[in-house]
Amino acid sequence: MTFISNKIFSSGLEMSFRKHKNIQKKKVALIGCGLIGQSWAISFLNAGFDVSLFDPLEGVTAQAKEKIKVRLIDLQNYGLLKSKNISDYLDKVHLAQNLSHAVKDSVYVQESGPEDLDIKKELTKKIDSATEANIPIASSTSGIPASLYASDIKGKYRCLVAHPINPPHLIPAVEIVPAPFTSEAITQTVKKFIISIDKEPLELKKEIPGFVVNRLQGALLSEAFNLIKDGISSAEDIDKAVSEGLGLRWSFMGPFQTIHLNAPEGIAGYVKRYEKMYKEMFNDPDMNWPSVVQLGLEEELLNLYSLEGQKKHEERRDRKLIQLLLHKKSSE
Amino acid sequence: MTFISNKIFSSGLEMSFRKHKNIQKKKVALIGCGLIGQSWAISFLNAGFDVSLFDPLEGVTAQAKEKIKVRLIDLQNYGLLKSKNISDYLDKVHLAQNLSHAVKDSVYVQESGPEDLDIKKELTKKIDSATEANIPIASSTSGIPASLYASDIKGKYRCLVAHPINPPHLIPAVEIVPAPFTSEAITQTVKKFIISIDKEPLELKKEIPGFVVNRLQGALLSEAFNLIKDGISSAEDIDKAVSEGLGLRWSFMGPFQTIHLNAPEGIAGYVKRYEKMYKEMFNDPDMNWPSVVQLGLEEELLNLYSLEGQKKHEERRDRKLIQLLLHKKSSE
Repeated sequence: MTFISNKIFSSGLEMSFRKHKNIQKKKVALIGCGLIGQSWAISFLNAGFDVSLFDPLEGVTAQAKEKIKVRLIDLQNYGLLKSKNISDYLDKVHLAQNLSHAVKDSVYVQESGPEDLDIKKELTKKIDSATEANIPIASSTSGIPASLYASDIKGKYRCLVAHPINPPHLIPAVEIVPAPFTSEAITQTVKKFIISIDKEPLELKKEIPGFVVNRLQGALLSEAFNLIKDGISSAEDIDKAVSEGLGLRWSFMGPFQTIHLNAPEGIAGYVKRYEKMYKEMFNDPDMNWPSVVQLGLEEELLNLYSLEGQKKHEERRDRKLIQLLLHKKSSE
Repeated sequence: MTFISNKIFSSGLEMSFRKHKNIQKKKVALIGCGLIGQSWAISFLNAGFDVSLFDPLEGVTAQAKEKIKVRLIDLQNYGLLKSKNISDYLDKVHLAQNLSHAVKDSVYVQESGPEDLDIKKELTKKIDSATEANIPIASSTSGIPASLYASDIKGKYRCLVAHPINPPHLIPAVEIVPAPFTSEAITQTVKKFIISIDKEPLELKKEIPGFVVNRLQGALLSEAFNLIKDGISSAEDIDKAVSEGLGLRWSFMGPFQTIHLNAPEGIAGYVKRYEKMYKEMFNDPDMNWPSVVQLGLEEELLNLYSLEGQKKHEERRDRKLIQLLLHKKSSE
């Protein structure tokens, strides 16, 4: 991943990031302390950050620390914490009296407020007013693009979405969704923060309702609901089609790599062989996968997984599948 | 799972199944010896069956045995074979000179021929003529319903689809798709065979193009292709949205259980909260998930996972996720 510099905004940001990398006390502000905010706290704490918590709802901020503690103990039992002492982490949890206290001296702000456009507009405005220039303000929203909630905000250049997946303290993927007005430097800095807490940033090049994760999930769910509606199968068997079928490969290999490996000629061969089947099953004459393949999809996949390496990738897939099956048996 | 008896056909079947369960030499016929046929051979061999192989293409039958051997050695290296001696398995591989020899004395026939309607019609007809009455004839087809290829066949009552997922010697799920004319006893017997080789049968109540697995995969793929077409994200990031996000839970928990656990009120609460989001993102005013929920989906899910057990199921999900993440780290 390259860090694309943006002269207007990046220097201060890069400096603050570098500076805080080399000092003990680097602090992030987490605004909104429900389940999502608590999960962010755990991820940042485990990466060595201090966290300032603030929730506008009375009492929630204080409760959050107790809940974070319970989860930390859980993770510790699995050997997933970097430090042995829970108190090391709890010492780094700061309960702020108000929003301004929370964001003061923070190098990053993550807002995890309610999924309500008006509340999010209002809350982001307040955060923006209180937060030092060039500090990123990311939102955990699962569906509201920054264009909708931040376009009227003075510091909109540092507003964007960083959407985690439930349960967020465990799932690595975080969607990074900048608005057209978000500074490229801010976007890249946020990706760096996400990587620094051992998460996996997925950057959207454009905003779209539902982002990528919920659109993929929604497409599969829509089909699953249709199968129930049409009396094709039980919910239990549809679940098994995923948990004992499709989901096994998908836990270590995405859908594109999966089909790229399912034909000797890679994705182009797969599409040639199976597009007709998919077209007929969805009764969708407009489906045109070959044009998408030629639009750059094949090029990208061949760059990632060359046909010369096809056999090696297949062997790796089978080895990973075997290891996963053995793992599943041992952890029943 | 209940075995629903069908007086006309079941007695002989049950008997042949029981009889062969208690004797050393129970044999299945595998017609078509490409990758899929070879995989079936491995699964049946590992469960203690003898297998008779026959492929109409010259030379393919003989080559198959060598390829099966290579895969068996692979599985042995992972401790996945029940017997220590590869030769124990190879002794049970019988190369038939013709179709009639292959099916003779077989308790089950699995056809894994080409995905071509005319070829499948012809092949199934030949198998039916050569095979003793009441022995099931299952096809590995990934998309052609038995109604299409078997309706003109005398023994159509014992024809149905048993569709494995690639790579079939590793993925547990097998779709069982009876035609309207398939005997219920045959369907239940085939499910028993599938279970007896440590696979997971998913029964479709009705035929539908693409069955369940490819429809779920196809729906997700369609959305993924659209995201590429619209320039939303790279293929690599879409793959990560699954392999570092959605696919983790899906490797041990299907899509319905996943969303049922994502709201305190279960699936009804999830749909209440999120249907609007999905409706808007797909611009689909006809989407009506609440009616499907009421149609029996909620009832089924509550029977499987009661709300009283919600916290326990959540804890189990998180524990399984943690174990999976640790497993993924250790097997990089």
